[in-house]
Amino acid sequence: MSQTMGSQSIQFEQAPYIQGSASIVGTKEGEGPLGKLFDVVGADDKFGEETWEDAESTLQKEAATLALGKADLQKEDIRYIFGGDLLGQNIATTFGLMELNIPLFGLYGACSTAGESLSLGAMAVAAGYGDNVLAVTSSHFASAEKQFRFPLEYANQRPLSATWTVTGSGAFVLGTKRTHVRITGITTGKVVDYGVKDSMNMGAAMAPAACDTIYQNLVDFKRQPEDYDKIVTGDLGTVGQEILIDLLKKKGYDISMVHMDCGIEIFDSASQNTNAGGSGCGCSAVTLSAYLLPKLEKGTYKRILFVPTGALLSTVSFNEGQSVPGIAHGVVIEYAG
Amino acid sequence: MSQTMGSQSIQFEQAPYIQGSASIVGTKEGEGPLGKLFDVVGADDKFGEETWEDAESTLQKEAATLALGKADLQKEDIRYIFGGDLLGQNIATTFGLMELNIPLFGLYGACSTAGESLSLGAMAVAAGYGDNVLAVTSSHFASAEKQFRFPLEYANQRPLSATWTVTGSGAFVLGTKRTHVRITGITTGKVVDYGVKDSMNMGAAMAPAACDTIYQNLVDFKRQPEDYDKIVTGDLGTVGQEILIDLLKKKGYDISMVHMDCGIEIFDSASQNTNAGGSGCGCSAVTLSAYLLPKLEKGTYKRILFVPTGALLSTVSFNEGQSVPGIAHGVVIEYAG
Repeated sequence: MSQTMGSQSIQFEQAPYIQGSASIVGTKEGEGPLGKLFDVVGADDKFGEETWEDAESTLQKEAATLALGKADLQKEDIRYIFGGDLLGQNIATTFGLMELNIPLFGLYGACSTAGESLSLGAMAVAAGYGDNVLAVTSSHFASAEKQFRFPLEYANQRPLSATWTVTGSGAFVLGTKRTHVRITGITTGKVVDYGVKDSMNMGAAMAPAACDTIYQNLVDFKRQPEDYDKIVTGDLGTVGQEILIDLLKKKGYDISMVHMDCGIEIFDSASQNTNAGGSGCGCSAVTLSAYLLPKLEKGTYKRILFVPTGALLSTVSFNEGQSVPGIAHGVVIEYAG
Repeated sequence: MSQTMGSQSIQFEQAPYIQGSASIVGTKEGEGPLGKLFDVVGADDKFGEETWEDAESTLQKEAATLALGKADLQKEDIRYIFGGDLLGQNIATTFGLMELNIPLFGLYGACSTAGESLSLGAMAVAAGYGDNVLAVTSSHFASAEKQFRFPLEYANQRPLSATWTVTGSGAFVLGTKRTHVRITGITTGKVVDYGVKDSMNMGAAMAPAACDTIYQNLVDFKRQPEDYDKIVTGDLGTVGQEILIDLLKKKGYDISMVHMDCGIEIFDSASQNTNAGGSGCGCSAVTLSAYLLPKLEKGTYKRILFVPTGALLSTVSFNEGQSVPGIAHGVVIEYAG
């Protein structure tokens, strides 16, 4: 029986193993510092489709199919998909994963969805609800810009605090078969609102939520920051990172030595003009698959806390004057020997 | 230990009990055939707010608070919320449930979200991940029309196959404490696409998904339609109902004697001009809370299959020529003596 820990966490007794994972990204991500590590870099960002939304669906389908292959499983072996994206009504997920013909739980947690899908997937496997499940998330620069900001054709300028939505999808097969990496616990986030109203500064909007979840994880599991080789946020960017480290210091924890942000790692901001860094559901998902998991598989990292962060807004809520609250879902991933 | 049944279902060993539930609706729903049964009928559809989206958030907050009260629990007693709505980026849920300060899993399954939230909530409680969880969903006629169709001010005419989005929210507390009603099993839906491209005929788009889930439920649990007092779909409406019954007959099951559709029950279509019936996440949720659960509590119904149905489209996917696939999540709810 798994155990609830403190106020927001679960420690899994039968911790699910990561059976395989895959990452697929766009051209800009392929040119970035992690470019060589991804499984697939698209030749162009349409991935053979006619619309940006179809391109994002294709990303999900390809990532899921690749992850299944790497796990040496067929789609029939998968009991559930836990999937989501940033688009209204989750259309990238619906149209991308339809053909797999697997029972689907559609999720929305903004850019925290990678953490939400891994959490629910791990809960399902650990409870014996299926031998294998799939967690899939995606984002696409062009479909996200069109939806949240301005169509690319407008050629708008971007403030320095703005992030750059990653074109990419990461898929993870979680299951009961022993491998070298497993999800040993989760800390599920609350909606945290510090009243930030600047949709071009999502790092600031999300940092309080990341702080809340990381703090609660450390308290619930009675750990110190150094009990993790890395505490990895999703897409706070440079602005959000500074705020997060400050906020946690005020609560008595210094994570500056172990903190890493996927949004900062995925682009070379200076040469790639990505300002504060990468963002999007895909950002943390592809970085986990391509960069972090291999280090866990080899035992280079023994234990990380993976904390994708989401900014909860829509153009409607923003235009109606609402703030941009954040949410962050923490997943403890360990080397299993 | 709970048991996976057949290809898509779970039978819960420690079946979670419904601790309490609440329904809140708008004026039109209050004037409908079920009007007297709802916990709260708003004086007007803005529920004291300035925007339709804020009104929908308020619906969720009120429903959740009422359900907690009826379950005799405080918000601190709730381990997780499983919540969602129809709006882009789930803003009704985010802004509605933020103040509760409870770990949140945001869900999107279009109008099937009531079934998705009850399924994941039941899975969590049955696995011992929390003593109590909350499942909340909502829809609002005006926020949905604005997003999916036309702003109300345009006064567009509606085809007869069109449904009318229900203004309402239903909230359910699931927990381990013994009550008279429990969730004994679930059948999780796949995305099913028959290529329907008419967004004004969502009943036809969703009927194949409802058929798929109901069929699989009967097969997985080795039941006949008459093993249920009612098989209750969410919002197929009159057009979708006919298609569903026909499709299931072709697969060898006649559900015509036990089928009920929340969308058909909630309005008097002839006098209320709602055409094919009610729809929206809120439609099935408030009907379950106000009409079905009391019958289960008294033992009038011994067992029902509750199958909220969702049409997976966005204005973007629709305008780009995509079909409208459907999804339906089945929940088996039984009188517990």
